[in-house]
Amino acid sequence: MRKVNGYVAHSAKEALVPFTFERREVGAKDVQIEILFCGVCHSDLHTARNEWQNTVYPVVPGHEIVGRVTAVGANVKAFKVGDLAGVGCLSDSCRVCPDCADGLEQYCDQEIFTYNSPDKYTGKMTYGGYSNQIITDEHFVLRIPTKLDLAAVAPLLCAGITTYSPLRHWKVGPGSKVGIVGLGGLGHMAVKLAHAMGAHVVLFTTSPNKIEDAKRLGADDVVISKNPDEMKKHLKSFDFILNTVAASHNLDVFTELLKRDGTMCLNGVPEFSHPSPSIFNLIFKRRQIAGSLIGGIKETQEMLDFCAEHNITSDIEIIAMKDVNEAYERMLKGDVKYRFVIDMSTLKVL
Amino acid sequence: MRKVNGYVAHSAKEALVPFTFERREVGAKDVQIEILFCGVCHSDLHTARNEWQNTVYPVVPGHEIVGRVTAVGANVKAFKVGDLAGVGCLSDSCRVCPDCADGLEQYCDQEIFTYNSPDKYTGKMTYGGYSNQIITDEHFVLRIPTKLDLAAVAPLLCAGITTYSPLRHWKVGPGSKVGIVGLGGLGHMAVKLAHAMGAHVVLFTTSPNKIEDAKRLGADDVVISKNPDEMKKHLKSFDFILNTVAASHNLDVFTELLKRDGTMCLNGVPEFSHPSPSIFNLIFKRRQIAGSLIGGIKETQEMLDFCAEHNITSDIEIIAMKDVNEAYERMLKGDVKYRFVIDMSTLKVL
Repeated sequence: MRKVNGYVAHSAKEALVPFTFERREVGAKDVQIEILFCGVCHSDLHTARNEWQNTVYPVVPGHEIVGRVTAVGANVKAFKVGDLAGVGCLSDSCRVCPDCADGLEQYCDQEIFTYNSPDKYTGKMTYGGYSNQIITDEHFVLRIPTKLDLAAVAPLLCAGITTYSPLRHWKVGPGSKVGIVGLGGLGHMAVKLAHAMGAHVVLFTTSPNKIEDAKRLGADDVVISKNPDEMKKHLKSFDFILNTVAASHNLDVFTELLKRDGTMCLNGVPEFSHPSPSIFNLIFKRRQIAGSLIGGIKETQEMLDFCAEHNITSDIEIIAMKDVNEAYERMLKGDVKYRFVIDMSTLKVL
Repeated sequence: MRKVNGYVAHSAKEALVPFTFERREVGAKDVQIEILFCGVCHSDLHTARNEWQNTVYPVVPGHEIVGRVTAVGANVKAFKVGDLAGVGCLSDSCRVCPDCADGLEQYCDQEIFTYNSPDKYTGKMTYGGYSNQIITDEHFVLRIPTKLDLAAVAPLLCAGITTYSPLRHWKVGPGSKVGIVGLGGLGHMAVKLAHAMGAHVVLFTTSPNKIEDAKRLGADDVVISKNPDEMKKHLKSFDFILNTVAASHNLDVFTELLKRDGTMCLNGVPEFSHPSPSIFNLIFKRRQIAGSLIGGIKETQEMLDFCAEHNITSDIEIIAMKDVNEAYERMLKGDVKYRFVIDMSTLKVL
């Protein structure tokens, strides 16, 4: 076991504070990464504050991890010391079920998340990326393109793949008319990715002050979803809508914008249920409401390579580790464009 | 214009009574059918009693129509006098939109239903199959297989195609595990059809007294959906679930039975909304909730031919026209196995 420094939540009501904990030794198939940057995902806040009622304390959040390889096990093939590398939401799975066999480890019933999952190596829970080092099985380590800004790559590991996977699964591309609901951490990535895939992209927001930004990010059109007249112009016209809003809201105003056989995919689980959706809207055009969870490892690598090819990263604001609690408060107010990323060098000087 | 006899509802609160009305003359592309049998669909009752708040009175219900051709227009190619023929829920559409071009007239924005739709020929509303004659454009007339019992074919025109279309669309076949929720008019057809398609069929019901019947109809297994232990055995195992229950109920107990990428398709619009479905259930296995509406004309013919090949008809109880009001009351009590069909020869003796 080796000592690692990080930031921890000891309970739902306390701020995150410095913490020293142990990680396993580097096994034959493990990659040891010095963490350089870690994105701040809304899931980190949900978990730190036990808003999903499943947190085991102490919890070290963080699953948008990029850094440099500092050691590799004897059987590691794809990485060597000095390489850039990343770890996302997943750090292990059963490897044998049909989901794993299909490269969709995120749907494996035994998936191990990068934090707050039982850790078979330490007997404790997994600890995430708010720390200076992580050790992960090679299968769950991503190659990071060198041509992109490293800090701005970090959020691709969650916000990027969470939106890329459904856009690909529902075959978004040239000729598609795609709606993105919400312009936050997920939404701003979805706009960039769908645009790069060649789709006609419409961003739905309740905030008129986001119009300009959405267009800069790649939206062909922006619709204020509170305005029924604007919405009506798009009735029955969308092939696919990716709804990134995790707060409870009326889904019907979006399902009725889908074409026949169109799908609205939800990325977020709201704390309070959405109003019950109109079944009439589904039946009368054979529409679908679906969900999607992050993405598998193979697809995450594909997404990173796609981002390198299209020069896509997240829009970020870099913060020091000690400022993470303030960042949480600002995130709750929507005061972030569009992702905080912790510069992990600021942890060393504690 | 020609005089036709039928049965009509004059208001939401009145019983159906005899009625004489006019139909158009036989046009160049029209087929005139002497109606021999007409199925009694729950939609007939909803419409007669204005439960969907869209009924224009007087209304002549009936859209499960079979009979014999008594005249054809000069340009009719597929039918001749003496042929068996049928008319289902649709009697016209725009013919040019993408839905019509794809043979999915049921999703056309200008679809004309067989009853209670504006009738461009008479300036009134369309009048349905509770009558002794109907005149319909050849495109919307179905060929009826001669080898099947004619009365028992009538319900295929709605209950049959409404379940056949989603089973085909979601590619049910050998190797599929398919759930059917509810054993009524739709459900009993869904069990027969899914079984004939080669799927492993599980019928969900709240009534233990339906177990034997479901197995006779083709179910491989029957699960009492109120029993959590029985339900738990089927977690994450279904490729597709067709939910035929139009009453408000908890959808989550079914969505959690779907495999990754599985779909539950809803056939019914409940009068009161379903409880809001769990988004968690959708996201964690990329599951989908969809809707489906009857079927297009081409697919309806395919369904009739499939039924002839597999010797499938509806289980029916034949009634006289004058007994339709009593049949409605029995339908509301679930006292029908599984479809009432009106013998239209009983109309003539009024």
